[in-house]
Amino acid sequence: MANPVLPSSGVLSPLGLDSVRVLPGFWGDRIALNNDVTIAHCQEWEEREGWIGNFRGERPRRGREFSDSEIYKLLEAMAWADHPGLPALAEIVAQAQEGDGYLNTRWTGSRYTDFEWGHELYCYGHLIQAGVARLRMHGEDQLTEVVTRAADHVCRRFMDGDETCGHPVIEMALVELYRATGTERYLEMARRFVERRGLPALADIPFGRAYYQDDLPVRQAQVFRGHVVRALYLASGVVDVAVETGDQELLKAVESQWERTVARRTHLTGGMGSRHADESYGEDYELPPDRAYNETCGSIASIMLAHRLLLATGDARYADLAERTMYNMLATGVALDGASFFYVNPLQVRVPATPLDGVNHAAEGGLRSPWFDVSCCPNNIARTLASLPAYVAAAKDGGVLIHHLTPAEIRSGRLALRVETGYPWQGSVSVRVLEDGEGRVGLRVPAWATDATLAHVPVSSQDAPLPEGPVIRPVGPGYAYVEGPWRAGDEIRLELPMRPRWTLPDRRIDALRGSAAVERGPLVYCAESVADEPPLAAVTARVDPPEEHETDGVVELEVGAKVSSGGDGTWPYGAAPASQEGADVRLRLVPYHRWGNRGPATMRVWLPTI
Amino acid sequence: MANPVLPSSGVLSPLGLDSVRVLPGFWGDRIALNNDVTIAHCQEWEEREGWIGNFRGERPRRGREFSDSEIYKLLEAMAWADHPGLPALAEIVAQAQEGDGYLNTRWTGSRYTDFEWGHELYCYGHLIQAGVARLRMHGEDQLTEVVTRAADHVCRRFMDGDETCGHPVIEMALVELYRATGTERYLEMARRFVERRGLPALADIPFGRAYYQDDLPVRQAQVFRGHVVRALYLASGVVDVAVETGDQELLKAVESQWERTVARRTHLTGGMGSRHADESYGEDYELPPDRAYNETCGSIASIMLAHRLLLATGDARYADLAERTMYNMLATGVALDGASFFYVNPLQVRVPATPLDGVNHAAEGGLRSPWFDVSCCPNNIARTLASLPAYVAAAKDGGVLIHHLTPAEIRSGRLALRVETGYPWQGSVSVRVLEDGEGRVGLRVPAWATDATLAHVPVSSQDAPLPEGPVIRPVGPGYAYVEGPWRAGDEIRLELPMRPRWTLPDRRIDALRGSAAVERGPLVYCAESVADEPPLAAVTARVDPPEEHETDGVVELEVGAKVSSGGDGTWPYGAAPASQEGADVRLRLVPYHRWGNRGPATMRVWLPTI
Repeated sequence: MANPVLPSSGVLSPLGLDSVRVLPGFWGDRIALNNDVTIAHCQEWEEREGWIGNFRGERPRRGREFSDSEIYKLLEAMAWADHPGLPALAEIVAQAQEGDGYLNTRWTGSRYTDFEWGHELYCYGHLIQAGVARLRMHGEDQLTEVVTRAADHVCRRFMDGDETCGHPVIEMALVELYRATGTERYLEMARRFVERRGLPALADIPFGRAYYQDDLPVRQAQVFRGHVVRALYLASGVVDVAVETGDQELLKAVESQWERTVARRTHLTGGMGSRHADESYGEDYELPPDRAYNETCGSIASIMLAHRLLLATGDARYADLAERTMYNMLATGVALDGASFFYVNPLQVRVPATPLDGVNHAAEGGLRSPWFDVSCCPNNIARTLASLPAYVAAAKDGGVLIHHLTPAEIRSGRLALRVETGYPWQGSVSVRVLEDGEGRVGLRVPAWATDATLAHVPVSSQDAPLPEGPVIRPVGPGYAYVEGPWRAGDEIRLELPMRPRWTLPDRRIDALRGSAAVERGPLVYCAESVADEPPLAAVTARVDPPEEHETDGVVELEVGAKVSSGGDGTWPYGAAPASQEGADVRLRLVPYHRWGNRGPATMRVWLPTI
Repeated sequence: MANPVLPSSGVLSPLGLDSVRVLPGFWGDRIALNNDVTIAHCQEWEEREGWIGNFRGERPRRGREFSDSEIYKLLEAMAWADHPGLPALAEIVAQAQEGDGYLNTRWTGSRYTDFEWGHELYCYGHLIQAGVARLRMHGEDQLTEVVTRAADHVCRRFMDGDETCGHPVIEMALVELYRATGTERYLEMARRFVERRGLPALADIPFGRAYYQDDLPVRQAQVFRGHVVRALYLASGVVDVAVETGDQELLKAVESQWERTVARRTHLTGGMGSRHADESYGEDYELPPDRAYNETCGSIASIMLAHRLLLATGDARYADLAERTMYNMLATGVALDGASFFYVNPLQVRVPATPLDGVNHAAEGGLRSPWFDVSCCPNNIARTLASLPAYVAAAKDGGVLIHHLTPAEIRSGRLALRVETGYPWQGSVSVRVLEDGEGRVGLRVPAWATDATLAHVPVSSQDAPLPEGPVIRPVGPGYAYVEGPWRAGDEIRLELPMRPRWTLPDRRIDALRGSAAVERGPLVYCAESVADEPPLAAVTARVDPPEEHETDGVVELEVGAKVSSGGDGTWPYGAAPASQEGADVRLRLVPYHRWGNRGPATMRVWLPTI
């Protein structure tokens, strides 16, 4: 089955690209743009920067020590997209592999001399994920061979001993290769990498061992900490190991770390990461909107983890966070042109970005850029969007659960369904049964949808006037089910409440005190002010129901606000209370994922209300 | 004259260590502790870490590329403290100097190959400052010779061309060496270093050229930006060049950059720096209490700059900022034991620090530590406290201005004065005239002292009952003057209002919205909660007049507060307003400079009020 995650057990069974076809709509359009534009964009930049040339032996070697991994993420994207350029690129990679399976353009000749920063096992991890994707989409070929040789080399070199890599990802990659090939040593190797972490396995560094989750064994940790991508890739691998080895204690450990992290270390957009210096989580409730790091890759890792936990447990809260993160982080990370990207995703930008013509070396937030010195994010977006259909639905007990409400055709067991919806802009979702069949159909009602309704409209009653035919019933957050059997033409109609809503922060989040944000459906909104007019530093919003305006299918909002001046401009602290005097303005709010497409602007998700 | 800054012109003339003796009291005690304990502590650690051994040729070389500069700062401290260990340490340094004057233990053999990060001119700058201190306190000796040979080497190598150093300090050092020796090429070299910066003179780096103030010529900049210590050392050198060359435009440029920086980029404590990643200023109004960087060295650099601007202009606002920074940053940077230090000075600490036994590699805030991998701060504190008497007063038109109200004996021109006060704990300041004399005496009334009074009590009327004798008059912020002539025994009495006061932030400082701080006199107070009991994340303060408690001469405060719980512990954002329900507690506030002396604790300066 064509899916990046295929656990052999779990409450849910994933449905892959061969079972789910995403149709034009919010995600379908993005997948098409990704496969048509973004993949080619990434390949072009990797050639230009010399990162592909490194595999051809071109010297001096160019790029950072982990640049090989970008080519592997691109290969994975190509695999899911069934891209015709894959074999040629895989051939270039294959030429660089050494006789014993070792493959790394940076460390050849000085293998395994820097576990803390060398990223060798990290690169294998992404290589293996690409190979698994290719195997599942296409069957065995040269890339499969490269990957199994590399994985066998890793097992030989690392099965005994206490070494691991400063950047996790090898763990989940090896489990998936086990799942794809049945070779048990891959699972055992992954298990050992998980268990030896935190004993500790790596040297202390100025950031501390928490940076790479080597401060504590994973079973003892209480919360995700340190470098966000590292933490979430590791946790994903831990779930995979736990599921395959039946280790409930290990699974519970990750669930409880996830729970505390979501409650205390996650931004409204689903983004994670509050510190720039080490790209890390901060302390509990350290969630600054302006200096939020929220690396795009961290959000992808969070979606990967949530999806694994969802499959293992069937708990809708994981799908809720995945949805929040998909609409407000993944969709934000790539611009509407498919060729410029955010690496860092703050929730407030005070100074409009200065446009750059080329690589954004600093990768600061506020500037959609074609490339970065560290370009993990574009390639990670490419492979994630290319495989996105695999996240949409799952099978359970002969039925289907639809996690993500997007136009799609879904076939599983004796069910063939077509989802039609204008979601996330509209709240109506129609699931039409395409063929006679059987099995329970579940639709996820998001946590914010506290007054949704569900109607089952049999094909036989569709000409009859409502409400005689269908039964409209209120449904709460979680999965709302309708039982079969089904006749072709039967329909399920879900109605989600799409009124914009004001959202307040937990009072322990100091950085957000006295402010509120607007959400509508799964979308977080923000004030975006091109050329900072009105000046967003000076607004105080009125917490009244926002007005809606739909243009070209996109819903924008408007709220009332005052624009006030600050103090006297000398010393910014004093006895006088903060002034709220000022002119009335209307403040335009756009979906956060769309900001930064209109030129340099200031932006804020959290609006002052006092 | 024994002063680190001796401009040849300016509104005020400095008074040095030969004119001002600081007596026991807040600063006198700290100077004594510094000269007795801190200087020896620094020397011991520099031996232990091998940084002194580097000068002896011990290999492998140890420490960071700029570790030579720590020995130079220590030498400067020894010079001001008239420390008997200076000649022996200077001898070790002298042995490492090369024939042409070049001196650097890191780059010998690969001179001037890395202007961006090499710190070679930076190290010369600190060496020269040490030599000037020694020359002024003691007269010429071996250190003077080392320093002039080094400075001559710098002039030969750099007078022509467009090179400069990634870390400023050479500019102010060369001007001072010119002032101390009269050798004009040192001034010209400094002027050229100032003028060539920002053309640009250095390579672009991921942090951007603003990191080392090379993004713009100094005349064009609007505000201090980039790395705080670099920015303020440069600005200090610019003021020195402007004063010596009579360049009013250049002086005005720094004054206006200072003004905007103080109004928008300075924390309540006077600390500067809002970003950890590059130790930099953030944008305007980016002033997070938890992630405030506020490096101790940055505060010292700010005091150095403010003192220079004060001498040049006579404007009390510069002394106001210097005082705020001295009491709330300099005094904070070193513990009551004189042997442990803060490098980073946040205004909020959420999680009590984990004690370390030895070097604090990460230099994170919240932990007073004996040493750091980068130990600029301890040595910088040592040289600053050792020279602190030079900041207390200045001469003007035959009179004396007292900037800092601390017990001291001051002699200048025809004035001999003794200041007695329990400031900053008490608001009464007495200036007693020791000998018959002449000249106007000015006392600085701090900006917060809006209802101070001044009395002139001639010796002749001291036995008479008040108010017949003295005239008590209200005085406003700025300098309050009393004219001579004087008779021995005459007294000036200044009364400053010491009621604790609530201070609110400018509403543009998003990170402080809905919170307030307590100040008393020049001191910023904070809630310090050992073992986080009560939990400071959960308090809401009542903005009522704080109670005062004096213990062992230290004034602590107490305010009422509620301790409330947060949300439901799952997702920290929702429709419900923040709860303020909870138990009443009394919250103890201690002077910020005293926090962290009682073991691991949480701390916050800004208290939530909503």
